[in-house]
Amino acid sequence: MPTRPVDNNKTLYLGIDGGGSKCRARIVSADNLLLGEGISGPANPVHGFDQTVYSIKDATLKALDDANLAPERIADLVAGVGLAGVNVPSYYEQMNDWAHPFCKMFLTTDLHIACLGAHSGEDGAVIIVGTGSCGFVSVAGEQSMLGGHGFPYGDKGSGAWIGLQAIKAVLLAHDHLGPSTLLTDLVDEFYQLNGNIVSLIEWVAAKPSSIYARLAPSVFQAAEAGDPVACRIIEDGVAYIDALAKCLLDKNPPKLALIGGVAEKIRPLLSPEVQEKVVDPVAQPEFGGIYFAKNSSATWRKQLS
Amino acid sequence: MPTRPVDNNKTLYLGIDGGGSKCRARIVSADNLLLGEGISGPANPVHGFDQTVYSIKDATLKALDDANLAPERIADLVAGVGLAGVNVPSYYEQMNDWAHPFCKMFLTTDLHIACLGAHSGEDGAVIIVGTGSCGFVSVAGEQSMLGGHGFPYGDKGSGAWIGLQAIKAVLLAHDHLGPSTLLTDLVDEFYQLNGNIVSLIEWVAAKPSSIYARLAPSVFQAAEAGDPVACRIIEDGVAYIDALAKCLLDKNPPKLALIGGVAEKIRPLLSPEVQEKVVDPVAQPEFGGIYFAKNSSATWRKQLS
Repeated sequence: MPTRPVDNNKTLYLGIDGGGSKCRARIVSADNLLLGEGISGPANPVHGFDQTVYSIKDATLKALDDANLAPERIADLVAGVGLAGVNVPSYYEQMNDWAHPFCKMFLTTDLHIACLGAHSGEDGAVIIVGTGSCGFVSVAGEQSMLGGHGFPYGDKGSGAWIGLQAIKAVLLAHDHLGPSTLLTDLVDEFYQLNGNIVSLIEWVAAKPSSIYARLAPSVFQAAEAGDPVACRIIEDGVAYIDALAKCLLDKNPPKLALIGGVAEKIRPLLSPEVQEKVVDPVAQPEFGGIYFAKNSSATWRKQLS
Repeated sequence: MPTRPVDNNKTLYLGIDGGGSKCRARIVSADNLLLGEGISGPANPVHGFDQTVYSIKDATLKALDDANLAPERIADLVAGVGLAGVNVPSYYEQMNDWAHPFCKMFLTTDLHIACLGAHSGEDGAVIIVGTGSCGFVSVAGEQSMLGGHGFPYGDKGSGAWIGLQAIKAVLLAHDHLGPSTLLTDLVDEFYQLNGNIVSLIEWVAAKPSSIYARLAPSVFQAAEAGDPVACRIIEDGVAYIDALAKCLLDKNPPKLALIGGVAEKIRPLLSPEVQEKVVDPVAQPEFGGIYFAKNSSATWRKQLS
């Protein structure tokens, strides 16, 4: 990992939250003043190293620009980088070996920084239900993650999972090998297929999971209109997220936060015993990244001295 | 489409069968003598144009070599090329625009040549259950296809679909969010995971569907040993293939053939009314490609004269 001498007067902290759809960056000063923010494209190393490091750099440069800071100040940033996929050792190593442009980079999972952000650095649990799905709990220094694993074999209940089920159902209905569903009209409208349902494949074939996640709002819409196929998809996804929540709550975290693009839709559908433990997240994962960068660099300096 | 003058004395016919795992080539003389055969890697344009044309050329050169013919004779081949994915117009056009090295290329779906091969060019229906799954029926000049659509949203009951369900089940069991299953031990053994189950993701993440299909034999093995999770996967897949078969039989084809890597395992599990219509395929899809090349070039010459 490249390191440069840390100059306390110049040091800025960068929080990065990278996932299957987006990469978000926030920069704060040493005295916690929010200076700037930036957003870029996908940053999940499982789906490609080059795209990931491009998105991280791009979001960071946008945040520097937003802060009216010169691009060269990238070398003064102490970065806390939380990424999807780096729970898998090979992806962690690949990302950690990156010849990054920062002063220092501390790498962890998107879940860890989400939990730090949601509970202001205190103990708690989070479930991310965005493009992917995953649970994380941190109690008395013990951390564990649950679920996730990626698309299409894991991430049940996530936006991408919901979208995939919808596409399966629309194709089965088209072939008269499954029940007809409102989803057919909604998918037709979404992709402007003009009745040529099978051409929806051209929109999704060999595409990343974020493409599937875009269909999730249509599935909630169909379920709210009472479509049995859409209701079954949402019920199946919610049952999984509910079971995931119960496993996390078995570790006795004081709070559980749901975050991600599908969280708001899922939260009111969870079982009452789970809902009563759910709180709003305090801050976004990028701020959790900043917590992580500050704590890690304090520990690192202690080790050096 | 590039064309060169057809010299009847030199003309050879090439049949190509390209799918998600393999590309097979056979060369016959104008008087139907089998001269050579070759196999190469994946040739499904949905998963990549460059890989597809590489595999087609590679299989063809191997078949020429097998026939003790010089590589330059590729320019004398009248090719009947059946490919997965070219039922989607954009992939058909992309492949048809290929600056191919043959004398002439006639392009159709893998299903069409499979049906022509299975029933010696006569009317009939086929279900391919290999890496993917799909049905095709040809009766009195009317052809239709059913199912397919690709991985992971379609191709139910296929090897890749069966493998994907197994990976989902193993990950759910690992997280104690699904029932435990024999599949855990079989997947551990297959990938030599030494108990580190989650590391199986590194074998499948962002990989083509053929990677998933490799696990299908383990799922049949677990089902045959009575594992309820594996039995449920196989039953669900077989129910879909059975429904697909019934839809094809509604068109009254004289015969139905099952082909592909999973066909032998699926056939005895189909409902009795479907099984009684099932026959063994007469010849392989590459020979269907040769039928297609011969018929198409005869029609083409008639149009020219």
